[in-house]
Parts: sequence; C-alpha cells; structure tokens
Amino acid sequence: MSKVYNFSAGPSMLPEAVMKEVQKEFLDFNGIGAGVIEISHRSKDYLAIAEKAAADLRDLMNIPDNYKVLFMHGGGRGVFANLPMNLGTAEGSADYIVTGAWSGYAAEEAVKYTHVNSMRGDFVNADGKVELKLKDLPLKKDAAYVHMCMNETIHGIEIFDAPETGDVPLVADISSCILSRRMDVSRYGMLYGGAQKNIGPSGITIVIVREDLIGHAQSITPAIWDYKVTADHDSMLNTPNTFAWYFAGKVFAWLKSIGGVEAMEAMNKEKSELLYGFIDSSDFYSNNVAVSARSRMNIPFFLKDSSLDQQFIAEAKANNLISLKGHRVLGGMRASLYNAMPLEGVKALVSFMEKFEKAHK
Amino acid sequence: MSKVYNFSAGPSMLPEAVMKEVQKEFLDFNGIGAGVIEISHRSKDYLAIAEKAAADLRDLMNIPDNYKVLFMHGGGRGVFANLPMNLGTAEGSADYIVTGAWSGYAAEEAVKYTHVNSMRGDFVNADGKVELKLKDLPLKKDAAYVHMCMNETIHGIEIFDAPETGDVPLVADISSCILSRRMDVSRYGMLYGGAQKNIGPSGITIVIVREDLIGHAQSITPAIWDYKVTADHDSMLNTPNTFAWYFAGKVFAWLKSIGGVEAMEAMNKEKSELLYGFIDSSDFYSNNVAVSARSRMNIPFFLKDSSLDQQFIAEAKANNLISLKGHRVLGGMRASLYNAMPLEGVKALVSFMEKFEKAHK
Repeated sequence: MSKVYNFSAGPSMLPEAVMKEVQKEFLDFNGIGAGVIEISHRSKDYLAIAEKAAADLRDLMNIPDNYKVLFMHGGGRGVFANLPMNLGTAEGSADYIVTGAWSGYAAEEAVKYTHVNSMRGDFVNADGKVELKLKDLPLKKDAAYVHMCMNETIHGIEIFDAPETGDVPLVADISSCILSRRMDVSRYGMLYGGAQKNIGPSGITIVIVREDLIGHAQSITPAIWDYKVTADHDSMLNTPNTFAWYFAGKVFAWLKSIGGVEAMEAMNKEKSELLYGFIDSSDFYSNNVAVSARSRMNIPFFLKDSSLDQQFIAEAKANNLISLKGHRVLGGMRASLYNAMPLEGVKALVSFMEKFEKAHK
Repeated sequence: MSKVYNFSAGPSMLPEAVMKEVQKEFLDFNGIGAGVIEISHRSKDYLAIAEKAAADLRDLMNIPDNYKVLFMHGGGRGVFANLPMNLGTAEGSADYIVTGAWSGYAAEEAVKYTHVNSMRGDFVNADGKVELKLKDLPLKKDAAYVHMCMNETIHGIEIFDAPETGDVPLVADISSCILSRRMDVSRYGMLYGGAQKNIGPSGITIVIVREDLIGHAQSITPAIWDYKVTADHDSMLNTPNTFAWYFAGKVFAWLKSIGGVEAMEAMNKEKSELLYGFIDSSDFYSNNVAVSARSRMNIPFFLKDSSLDQQFIAEAKANNLISLKGHRVLGGMRASLYNAMPLEGVKALVSFMEKFEKAHK
C-alpha cells in the first residue's frame, strides 16, 4: 500500500504505532493463547487493561479525584439522552448553548427529558465570519446544568474560553477535541465524548463526571445509562466494548510516551495554523469562521468555484489524500486534523492545494 | 503460544480463520491504505461491508422480508430498556417468562417503562432437576408482547419449544444461542442479542424486529434506541461500532462457507452431547438441568466435592483449558461451547475431566 493521509471526520486515522501493536498481538495477547477480544471482560487479564486505561486517562487529563471516569455505550448521541436523565429533572430545566449542528442535536434530544432553555452562542460578524459570543447569555440561575459543544465537528467551531456559569454545572461535549489540548476539568461538572476521533475505534463513550452530580437519575433512566450504577460497577454492569476500551488504553499510553496533552496541543496548533495560514493567504480557498473560533480539529473550507469540488476530491485521492469531502450540511471540503494526523499529512495537503490552485486559477 | 481452548461465557473464542483474516488486513483494508477502524462509517467501502453483513445474516437466519435487521448500541441490557420503550406502553403491560438470571433482569428493567406481568417458566422436578413448563402460563391476551430468554447463559437452560402466544408478539433474547441452531424467525415479533457469544467482539447488538411493531415508540425513547429511527437510518443515526459490525460480517461469511446454521447446529449437538454424556456417566460430576431443557451453549457442572474446585480450575488451565470457573451465582464450573469452539476442544475437556476424576476418586 502507499502512504495515505486520511482526513475523515471520524472514524479516522489512528496512531500508526498503536495500529501495529494491536495487529501484532491480535491472536495472542500477552502469551495467554487468546486475543483480547476473545477474553471475558471480568478476567484478570482484561481488568488490568481496563484499569490501566482509566488511570492513564486520568493522568493525561489531570482529572481530579472527585470525578468518575465512565466507559459507556451509545456514543455522543447516547449522552444527549442520558445527560438530562442523570443530571436533569422532568420538572426543572437545563440551558443549551447552540453553536452548530451537534449542540443543536443535543438540545433537541434533551427536550424529551427536561425543559430546555436553548440559546445561540454564535453569530455572523460584520466580515461575514462566524464568531462566538458566550458572555451575557440568558442563562438561568436555577438550571440543572449548562450544555455546550466544545468543538463543532461539522461547522469547524471550537470554544477555547468556556462561559462562566457560576454554581450551575457546565457540561461539555468534547467528542472531537478530547486530548487535543489541555482542559481544566475542574471547571466542568461533566465532560463526555465518543472515542472515534482522537481516541480509538467507534462504539465506546467516555463520561467524566463530578461525583456529587451522580446518584440523582430520573426513574426512567436505563440501568446501563445510570451514571451511579455504571460507576458502582466500574463501567461493567454489562459487557463493555472491550476492543475499543483496550485500543483506547494503547492510545493513552502512546500519547503519554510522546509528551502528553501539552506536546499534542503544540503539534495541533502547528498543524492547524499551517492549513489556516495557507487558506487565508489564498483567494481561491476560504474558511468562514472567525480566527478566535476556529477549530484546530476540523477545518471546513470552500473552493471559490464549487464546480471544481468533484475534481478537487478526485485529484486529492489520486495524491493519497482521502476523505476531504465536506459534510452534506455545509458542502465544500473538510480536513479533520485529529491527534493521529502527522504534520507531514497537512504539509502534503497544503502542497496539493497549492498545485490545484495554480492549475485552475 | 500453545493451543488454548477458551470456555468463557463471553466474550469468548472466535473462529480462528476470521481472527487471522482480520489481523492480516488490519492496517490496510482492501488496498485503500487505511484500516477498517480508521474509515468513516459513511464511506463507500464501509457501507459495502455493513450491507453485506446484514444480507448474510438474513440469509443465514432466513429472515423474512417484513423484518428489519438493526445493529445497535447497548448490549442485551440496553434492549431490556428499549424493548418496552418501543413495543410497550406506560399504561399497558407485557408478559415476562422467567427461567433464570437473564430473563429476570429483563423483567426488572422493563418495570421502568410498562406494567410487567412476570411468571416462572421453570420448576424443579421430582428428580431435583430444573425443567421448563411453558404451557398454560398465565399470559394476558392484551399484553403488548411476551418476553423470554431462549438460552440462559448462567443457568444453562435453553428453550427449544417456544410457547404459543397467539396474536401477542413473542420476543426472545437470543444473545447466547443466535446462529447456533435453526430458528423460525416468523414465529417471533422480535429476536435480539449481544454479539459477544456466537458472533464477534462485544459492543454491538442485533435486533430483528417485525416491521408492524416499529414506529410506536414511547415519547421518552432516546433517538438512538428508537427502532423506527434506527431502521430509517440503516442503523447509522450515529456512528455504530464499526469494528464489531465488520467482524460480525466476517463471521457470517465464515458460517456460510462451512454449511450455514444447519451444519453448525449438527456440530453443536455433537459437542454438547459429548460433554453431557460424559457428565451423566460419571458420579464425580453433575449437571442439574433436565435433559429437555439443557443448553447446548453453556453447560454448568459441579464437582461432587467442591473443595476440589480450585484445583480443577488450576489443572485445567495448565492443560490449556481456560475460563471454566462457574458464574458466581451458581458456583461450580461452566463450559461454554459457542460456535467457534471446535469438537477437539470438547474432547480435550472430557479427556481432562476423566483424568481428574480418576486421580481424585
């Protein structure tokens, strides 16, 4: 095979070193004569894997002791339902800050379980760019929580300065920016995300939740989605996605080995600045997000002449740059630069974009 | 590594041929330069995998056209909640036949969403053996559905003759016997199961449901657990467990290649009869289930002298026979003989049991 750079929004590229390690021990883990996916989640061998993964994630994110780390079923959309089930009440309300597609979906789902006070956290500024406005929001003092999406995978908008919510717990969907940069976990009541961007294979969801917020689930909460039940069973009330949990543990260990989240953040800044810098220097390509709100993970961009879109995608693929087609909601292109995307991949993309521009200008 | 036979109740042994194939293409699927777990679930390459898996399962189980096949999140316990959400109502009721631990858990969870009419389907007969009694049950004519567990993984009880339920849809948990023998899908309103026994890695759940039963979900049903929404999105409202779905597809293809479910059923009969036959011929070992209710998949057995249990487990392991410890609810031993367990594995177990008996009699 030739070296391919995969800009998919997720599932996406995973660290090559981890992929090779997992392949190597696929049939025989640790000399036990069986693969990891063939052993019980309650076996000694597996429990050691699961515990180390949780401990390494705590290390990487500096998670305080009064937070639980849960490995759950259902993806981000599962949490859209089980968050209001666990932290909200049918009579009370929760605030939802909408800054793009995913925060909007979260608010829509929550309506089934609590009263939703929804508000826009973004606007289009005088230059026609999407910008964030997270001060003076109409937050309610008696809301059960405030929800935001830290990185909007479709719209390419990232929140670097989380709003102040006083005593009301702030909850953030970090599916597509988890472990991409430092975060002060203690500022949040809960952080959560699907794994299939910066962590590993799809089908596992990480919930990091402050202990005092659990134990109050609504009576309709399914057992496997009750944070207290999940915590009390070490995320094994039923069989978890053992492969994804194991793989996530390998990614955590790999991330520690290359310098942790701080080092990763520096790399992600460099990668995204390279691509944004090139787009801004060109009048052939454009991005419609204000600099202060630009995602480092997902960079949507548009060709001036959208009739060239198909050709751009086809030629990129011929150059081993795959999955650049934008989300159907926005059209155009999108380059996702998750942790596993090396700087060389972004350089290769920029170089291709330059050539394409010259050929079509 | 030496050849190990793994009798775990799940996750458990998977077909060696499939394990090797998955390992081989782990880094580069079909020459695309990326592994299956690294590509979008909405990519052309992945959709082909997903569709073929669903079609092969339809073939293998002879699933009629008026049934949907869904690939979902949450495991069997997830369905314990989303079954009453989708097929039941808060005002109405559902019948639950309890024959062991898992059917009991299903009934307990359903109480959150509907009125549960629970009844025992088993009893201890004059010989002290657990037997099924599924005729003349106190079923309600206006129940939304009747629930049963076709194979009780912990108690080793299998239902071969499903009860008659007239116009009331019969729903069966087939987590631990799916694809182990022929089933007449048209007799059921719904069949469901987690994958981690006879299909593949954990973290994906298969729901086979008659079309007329979907589209009536309660308003509190999470979007990802609404069967209609799931069907309308081809099980991809959100990102499914792409690895498990892909792996399941490989197992379905493998099963077709060796003769399908009919051939597998014959092998499973042979394997289980070998072990039960040996246990019954011995007064050192015993099984407490009546012959007509014995599971072909999970065979609990007990040593006459339970003080030898630890030694039995340790010596079995030294003989490469692993995960024979019984479930904590019952104690003793349990040998799970899923589809991927070869006859040689059962022969090796029986041979070890014979030697152990001779040494300790």
